Amino acid sequence: MVLHGVHSKALKNGDAEIPLEAGKFRVYNMRFCPWAERAMIYISVKGIDAEVINLNVTDKPQWYFSKHYQGKAPAIEYNGKIVIESAYIPEYLDDIFPESRILPTDPYEKVQQKLLTERLTAVAMSVPSLFAVMRDKSLKTEKNQKVIETLEMAESLLANSDFFAGKSAGYPDFLTFPFFEKMWWATRIEGVTDLPEIGFPGVEKFPKLTKWFDYMINLEAIQNVTQSIEHGSQFMNAYATHSKLDYNLGL
Amino acid sequence: MVLHGVHSKALKNGDAEIPLEAGKFRVYNMRFCPWAERAMIYISVKGIDAEVINLNVTDKPQWYFSKHYQGKAPAIEYNGKIVIESAYIPEYLDDIFPESRILPTDPYEKVQQKLLTERLTAVAMSVPSLFAVMRDKSLKTEKNQKVIETLEMAESLLANSDFFAGKSAGYPDFLTFPFFEKMWWATRIEGVTDLPEIGFPGVEKFPKLTKWFDYMINLEAIQNVTQSIEHGSQFMNAYATHSKLDYNLGL
Repeated sequence: MVLHGVHSKALKNGDAEIPLEAGKFRVYNMRFCPWAERAMIYISVKGIDAEVINLNVTDKPQWYFSKHYQGKAPAIEYNGKIVIESAYIPEYLDDIFPESRILPTDPYEKVQQKLLTERLTAVAMSVPSLFAVMRDKSLKTEKNQKVIETLEMAESLLANSDFFAGKSAGYPDFLTFPFFEKMWWATRIEGVTDLPEIGFPGVEKFPKLTKWFDYMINLEAIQNVTQSIEHGSQFMNAYATHSKLDYNLGL
Repeated sequence: MVLHGVHSKALKNGDAEIPLEAGKFRVYNMRFCPWAERAMIYISVKGIDAEVINLNVTDKPQWYFSKHYQGKAPAIEYNGKIVIESAYIPEYLDDIFPESRILPTDPYEKVQQKLLTERLTAVAMSVPSLFAVMRDKSLKTEKNQKVIETLEMAESLLANSDFFAGKSAGYPDFLTFPFFEKMWWATRIEGVTDLPEIGFPGVEKFPKLTKWFDYMINLEAIQNVTQSIEHGSQFMNAYATHSKLDYNLGL
């Protein structure tokens, strides 16, 4: 395991900053945040020897604003340089660690993978539909319609290959997985969706996507950075219903 | 002038596709769209010998959907490859025409310029506040507050340099200019904003930004692809008030 501190307790306001040793790579993470998870997966897949600092983003350490002007996760820190935002960290990591490059070097192939990832943010955008059902179960049918449409769009984008990146998992796959996983977490919460927990999102309607999700979630590099559906669903339900959040759930 | 067809009439549904000669570079544009203008400016600044196809995006040529799955502008076509989206075309152009590269090659400098551009999309996001005033003049004070806050943010980002990119105009400057220009167009419409048309957005409150805007709008590469405030403001007002759009205004 090249990532250290994946299961460390979240730092909060009042907790001291931990100095970063020279030459070490650090990622600031929030364990249940799909955007932060994009960076965590990318780092894990690339095999970067990284130190993970988990954050309580409700009650943030004040010093963290010197790392990220909005105090959000993710951010990475390496050789005195800080880079923020899940849409920009991955390519930066490919640029500074080219030996484990995930994005293609060919300009056209590269931009197509980025455009596909952009198109797949529709998956991220439909997760709040499930949050709405968590707050009001009477919205289940209406809100799941949007989720189903998004899954159909994603399924259609897999028509000609097993992965969004093509023959093997790549940039669009790693950056989009966390949002499918959040939908999957929602299957554990009573009355939110009829999508199945086992064989998600359902082999009959979504054969390619179901095979893809099963492959992705079982990748060791992903397993090493994700949370269980038990704790993930609890945290997400609390987040959606504006309840008190336990950033150390399961630790 | 390296751009051909900047002032050509907009193609609409029923108009035939014009074959692209081998080796020629083409950009699909909408003359009054700030997103398309990002690509136009980048192409112009890089000095790419390009053919411009203006589009009527309300009543689109059917064949255009084979270029862009949503039928939107901008898109570029070159050597049989099509790339879409104003956030992705510029870097692609730097990749395939590196001799006129605008983005830095250093990974950290590059990602910082992209992050700054992302932060400056707040300017784009505040333009619809002015559209709201065009529809309902009673909202002037309330909606201009958001615009002023955005301009203050932009002014603060110029605190240490004359350009967003640093010592000279670069990626964040070229990609953000169209949205400042749309705000400027709004000054020509009665009762929409108190921001000045001459010396926009106002040297007293925004000294750096005023100097920046004056420099940018007078760049020959920008002058070569922009529309006049007279026609721009007319088109924008029609767009905001859901009136009939004349894509050939001023031609």
